[in-house]
Amino acid sequence: MGKFSHIDKEGKANMVDVGHKPPQVREAKASGKILLEQETIRLIKENDLKKGDVLTVAEIAGIQAAKKTSDLIPLCHSLQITKAEVKCTVVDDGVIASTRVKCIGQTGVEMEALTAASVALLTIYDMCKAVDKNMKIEGITLLDKTKTDLK
Amino acid sequence: MGKFSHIDKEGKANMVDVGHKPPQVREAKASGKILLEQETIRLIKENDLKKGDVLTVAEIAGIQAAKKTSDLIPLCHSLQITKAEVKCTVVDDGVIASTRVKCIGQTGVEMEALTAASVALLTIYDMCKAVDKNMKIEGITLLDKTKTDLK
Amino acid sequence: MGKFSHIDKEGKANMVDVGHKPPQVREAKASGKILLEQETIRLIKENDLKKGDVLTVAEIAGIQAAKKTSDLIPLCHSLQITKAEVKCTVVDDGVIASTRVKCIGQTGVEMEALTAASVALLTIYDMCKAVDKNMKIEGITLLDKTKTDLK
Amino acid sequence: MGKFSHIDKEGKANMVDVGHKPPQVREAKASGKILLEQETIRLIKENDLKKGDVLTVAEIAGIQAAKKTSDLIPLCHSLQITKAEVKCTVVDDGVIASTRVKCIGQTGVEMEALTAASVALLTIYDMCKAVDKNMKIEGITLLDKTKTDLK
Amino acid sequence: MGKFSHIDKEGKANMVDVGHKPPQVREAKASGKILLEQETIRLIKENDLKKGDVLTVAEIAGIQAAKKTSDLIPLCHSLQITKAEVKCTVVDDGVIASTRVKCIGQTGVEMEALTAASVALLTIYDMCKAVDKNMKIEGITLLDKTKTDLK
Amino acid sequence: MGKFSHIDKEGKANMVDVGHKPPQVREAKASGKILLEQETIRLIKENDLKKGDVLTVAEIAGIQAAKKTSDLIPLCHSLQITKAEVKCTVVDDGVIASTRVKCIGQTGVEMEALTAASVALLTIYDMCKAVDKNMKIEGITLLDKTKTDLK
Repeated sequence: MGKFSHIDKEGKANMVDVGHKPPQVREAKASGKILLEQETIRLIKENDLKKGDVLTVAEIAGIQAAKKTSDLIPLCHSLQITKAEVKCTVVDDGVIASTRVKCIGQTGVEMEALTAASVALLTIYDMCKAVDKNMKIEGITLLDKTKTDLK
Repeated sequence: MGKFSHIDKEGKANMVDVGHKPPQVREAKASGKILLEQETIRLIKENDLKKGDVLTVAEIAGIQAAKKTSDLIPLCHSLQITKAEVKCTVVDDGVIASTRVKCIGQTGVEMEALTAASVALLTIYDMCKAVDKNMKIEGITLLDKTKTDLK
Repeated sequence: MGKFSHIDKEGKANMVDVGHKPPQVREAKASGKILLEQETIRLIKENDLKKGDVLTVAEIAGIQAAKKTSDLIPLCHSLQITKAEVKCTVVDDGVIASTRVKCIGQTGVEMEALTAASVALLTIYDMCKAVDKNMKIEGITLLDKTKTDLK
Repeated sequence: MGKFSHIDKEGKANMVDVGHKPPQVREAKASGKILLEQETIRLIKENDLKKGDVLTVAEIAGIQAAKKTSDLIPLCHSLQITKAEVKCTVVDDGVIASTRVKCIGQTGVEMEALTAASVALLTIYDMCKAVDKNMKIEGITLLDKTKTDLK
Repeated sequence: MGKFSHIDKEGKANMVDVGHKPPQVREAKASGKILLEQETIRLIKENDLKKGDVLTVAEIAGIQAAKKTSDLIPLCHSLQITKAEVKCTVVDDGVIASTRVKCIGQTGVEMEALTAASVALLTIYDMCKAVDKNMKIEGITLLDKTKTDLK
Repeated sequence: MGKFSHIDKEGKANMVDVGHKPPQVREAKASGKILLEQETIRLIKENDLKKGDVLTVAEIAGIQAAKKTSDLIPLCHSLQITKAEVKCTVVDDGVIASTRVKCIGQTGVEMEALTAASVALLTIYDMCKAVDKNMKIEGITLLDKTKTDLK
């Protein structure tokens, strides 16, 4: 049972020790989608055309959520993120949130990238909930994860 | 464009005024699923049998996230939640997080229920990320939402 | 010395008891200005024309700060804000942040309105600091404050 | 439009990548003033003479706000502050908050110093709002900013 | 096993539903002591005589902690505290922190009073840790707890 | 009076500068006990046997509190914890919380270890408060503290 991150041999949870690892440049990309009705998509596009705030609010919420990841996920280490990017794009059947997070640290930033995508999509849900009663958040997943030695 | 919650006629974002609404008992239920590999599911079941912490950590994280919703979603009102319940259940292809949140207030608790489900699933992702490289979070959706007058 | 809010006869600080006051509709308006160089103002206008994010990010930061006021100001009561509005307007010599906050409660929301204005202006400072070395935040002040009995 | 910190060529907001910069000792000093009525100034001096808490509460609030800067300003990086100092001084027409913040990091601490000054002054506003109806916060500005290579 | 607050018949944790209870005036008092060496006590008294900040910093930290209780204790409800008071008193063998918290709500404020006392004492520990290697926090306990119907 | 951590010659509080210290591996261990009635201890043991959540919830709360220490203790530096471990053990007269925290940094993690123990015990208090009216938290103390040079 010791194969889980954060779970010891007795099955108990703890924040694992990453102190022995060398600091490296860590990067992770994630994405997810919120499925929306056609009328909602039309309204978001109209808002976007008129310089409206819908997609920006979601992107800002995602960036801020990346910084709060260790406060939300009990066994996550707190990290000093050097970059966080969240892009919300309207597609045929909804909005896709794509995120990219970097840090220099001893553990990866995949949870930060996934949390940013989740919260960006929840924020779109919040803004559209008066017009769309059939929203669903789908496919929150890690796209890529790299570590590079410091020069 | 004024149909969106939180978005005014010019397309700009603001927290809407809910002050004129009477306080009511509000309840919302949401759920979502994390898709896992068979070996991961086996490990979670084994952890559960041995009184391990995996599902409990996710449930606690979900409850705490419900209380932080207005801090995560920029235009959400802060509410005094009177009940929050998060249940994680192992199924054939993953784990389902089911949530139920109640408050007495002037606006609903659907975002709290959805945020609790999202963060519970992200917490399972965090604990399983060393053993499963193909996880995906799917189907975060509102199941039910009610409002009842105060007696 | 007992005239100060939050300060007792011995000069010591405490959160005062507002429990005996009836809940009322409380509203407060505040504003403040950040003085900017002409070139910075030109860049913000250009960003605004191109549907850029500068003013929106500041407005969102202000709204979120209103909700965090009791966490920032040690002796402030936490309140359930029913509305928060932050509007950033480009003027001849800078950007004005105008805020309006409402709650139903036993104490006023002036600190929430002032905090929202301060943080919106600090956010503009943050985004402009690479192009403008002479910024100054001025005139953070309460414009109006009302209380109305609940019907 | 790419000249703004945090704003890309399309005018969209993101946390910029500071990961390529070498860590340096960063220091910033800021200040601001709250204008007060003579009677309020007299009361603060009296409180100070009697070992009262007014100025100390504001100083503590400023120090804590410095640590929360990245939570308040959406595109700020979180930093590990190595020193934070806030000094509130009674002057002829009000109280001046002077701040000094240091870190070892890849980006400066000017926003931390400015946020500390703003929140210290807001805290004085909060404590004096029962006795002074004409307060105004003025001149929040950066005084100095240095970076020094690590030895 | 259903006798525990927050624990259901299966032994699982959840935030219990307090929504059916009428709001009442709730008050709780708690205290605790940090045991200190004589030299440390002498230094604190000297600091206090010279209008130093040691006891004030601890009191402010306690008040702020009361407001954060539901963020710290996973199954605590968030409450709108109407009063929080923390008093630190030097005694023969250390410092006593006495707290009093009030709210109008559906559940009591004993955890808020106990958390305020704990954090005030931890703050004294933090400030004295360079001079005293034998500190111990003792006797954190609830002194009194009342509920009164609203008029 | 300059002997206190965080207190300067005038007795005023500030976050001290740790920037000149070399980063080292820092570790601290702390513990504390909550005294419980025999019936409460029996119920906790029963809950533990049935894979109940009581001890796990307290352990998770302790781990999360370790990460929030600098937000709770005004003059604490924020640190990047590399490991946090909280173990709650039922003993004859109550429950002992034992904590271990590590970081690589310029200042120690004793406050993090002590805060984790305090919050774990407060969480047990919260869950047992319906069944036990005589709880007391005792003996929160540092067990061990080390610093080791980085290799």
